[in-house]
Amino acid sequence: MNVDDLPTPALVVDLDAFDANVATMAARWPATTLRPHVKAFKSTALAGRLAAAGHVAFCCATVREMEGMAAAGLGHDLLLANEVLGPAAERLGALARSGEARVTAAVDSDATVDAAADAGVTEVLVDVNIGLPRCGCHPADAGRLADRCRSRGMTVRGVMGYEGHLMREPAAAKATGVKQAGELLLTALEATGGDVASGGGTGTWSTNEWATELQAGSYCLMDTEYVAHAPEFAIALSLSTTVISSSPAWGVLDGGLKCLGMDHGNPTVLGAGECLFVSDEHITVGWRHGDWLEPGSRVRVLPAHVDPTVAYHDRMHVVHDGEVVDEWPVDLRGW
Amino acid sequence: MNVDDLPTPALVVDLDAFDANVATMAARWPATTLRPHVKAFKSTALAGRLAAAGHVAFCCATVREMEGMAAAGLGHDLLLANEVLGPAAERLGALARSGEARVTAAVDSDATVDAAADAGVTEVLVDVNIGLPRCGCHPADAGRLADRCRSRGMTVRGVMGYEGHLMREPAAAKATGVKQAGELLLTALEATGGDVASGGGTGTWSTNEWATELQAGSYCLMDTEYVAHAPEFAIALSLSTTVISSSPAWGVLDGGLKCLGMDHGNPTVLGAGECLFVSDEHITVGWRHGDWLEPGSRVRVLPAHVDPTVAYHDRMHVVHDGEVVDEWPVDLRGW
Repeated sequence: MNVDDLPTPALVVDLDAFDANVATMAARWPATTLRPHVKAFKSTALAGRLAAAGHVAFCCATVREMEGMAAAGLGHDLLLANEVLGPAAERLGALARSGEARVTAAVDSDATVDAAADAGVTEVLVDVNIGLPRCGCHPADAGRLADRCRSRGMTVRGVMGYEGHLMREPAAAKATGVKQAGELLLTALEATGGDVASGGGTGTWSTNEWATELQAGSYCLMDTEYVAHAPEFAIALSLSTTVISSSPAWGVLDGGLKCLGMDHGNPTVLGAGECLFVSDEHITVGWRHGDWLEPGSRVRVLPAHVDPTVAYHDRMHVVHDGEVVDEWPVDLRGW
Repeated sequence: MNVDDLPTPALVVDLDAFDANVATMAARWPATTLRPHVKAFKSTALAGRLAAAGHVAFCCATVREMEGMAAAGLGHDLLLANEVLGPAAERLGALARSGEARVTAAVDSDATVDAAADAGVTEVLVDVNIGLPRCGCHPADAGRLADRCRSRGMTVRGVMGYEGHLMREPAAAKATGVKQAGELLLTALEATGGDVASGGGTGTWSTNEWATELQAGSYCLMDTEYVAHAPEFAIALSLSTTVISSSPAWGVLDGGLKCLGMDHGNPTVLGAGECLFVSDEHITVGWRHGDWLEPGSRVRVLPAHVDPTVAYHDRMHVVHDGEVVDEWPVDLRGW
């Protein structure tokens, strides 16, 4: 099927761009020095491609992703790079006890250490705050938490930290900041023991010198916001839409808020004008002079944020030379 | 089950608030003078409640919603308040021909008239632009399009128009604007023939004097943005989250960009501080002085935009007096 025969709206992956992104990353971070972050694509079919490229250890943001990766036979070494408590911790422990996957959990507090231990998780990373106001213990508390983990019978594989506050910094500030963040994390690693310093992301893939494994996921598909901060990777993801209404001044595409993560702003409309605003099931485009498209025309749209865009869709259509050659289910949605 | 025992993140509906919203709207727009807009909740279980309250005619934004409503036995009178072409039009025609639902399509161009007729749709409304730069023909073109519909063997039930550009105007400007928009639509109705003038929404429920049927959906569940423009309705929808990480300055909740439509900005955190930013699976909250919550605490979050929030979830948990009394699948997602 030609890509222009897909029912719209449809999420489309350019296979050449995807393959090039995978190769670029693998040249710098080969095999398990990359721990691809499943949250960016939520698809075991896509993850399988990365495993075939040698990246057989993954990280996840939700227990649902962990369970789905294990069920798909991709459970060689799964890190839940997030804290869990209550029912989510219990499910994680059940997965670890099942033997279907090697499960490592992030912990950053007494409560999350105890939840992991109580649930039957046996391996952890101590999550250390290295500058982003989100999860992670104070660096000075990492050693104490590691001792608590060991006292509960768990193995401390090392530490993780995410320098997410630096992804969008200019090059010089990014280099300095990432180095300082790494010093915090490596000092914490001395206190915790273990040999893993997991961290980084697409935005620091070429800056980060300290991660023993890079947690990057967005690089596979990319978006209009991230490409400014990691220009070595191409935008492989787009939304195929149809013009459903048209006037001389503006037109309306059949994609909308339920196709697109909007926290990074409006999408970019290719070749047909400017996105004026996005409604639930519509994108209103101001035509450029002379570019008035008739109803039925196809228009490609580039999302501004890959992760929350993919999470709205149940599949991605993989395209090569204009032909749909594969379909990757987005099978890891939900929690 | 108590609401605080739900696995998080979980979308929660306060049944009392929902029932009050339904009653408030039905008092002004009883029976089929209201055509509830399914796009706001995408759930046949919720729609069934509205049908039981007398609102047995619905409007939809996607063919998937039309098909799902028909399959759920809610096809008494379904309007697709949107333009369709190509495969979507063919599916709509198949639904009309199946006899499982009364199907009316919106048309606003020669192309959409022909697509409806070719597909076997037999009833239409002419969609008229009354001020919002989105779908709808120029008012002066409505009569010609109606003639074209009849020449293709279709019945013109009347017109529809959406004064969506006025939902957020101050009261006086809204009243004037809605009146003028209605004059445009009623003039077009004279030209098209038929007896339906479908339009309006939650934001103009008390201002619109001209719609023969109001297309409101957000009023059922509401959100923090809409409540300023229709304060007679209560916010019935919230996200239940768990604190998964906490420091003296900030805490992290286990909901994020994949739980929340973000085009209207950050959600509102109830009782625990201010939303600082939202990540894929995290909400970082700046604690208020003295309000530092420990990991494991439950926090309720109010979405800023109901429609794209619901579209991320596969179910809503219905709560009465703190107990989960029902579950409404969000079964109309996708296209």
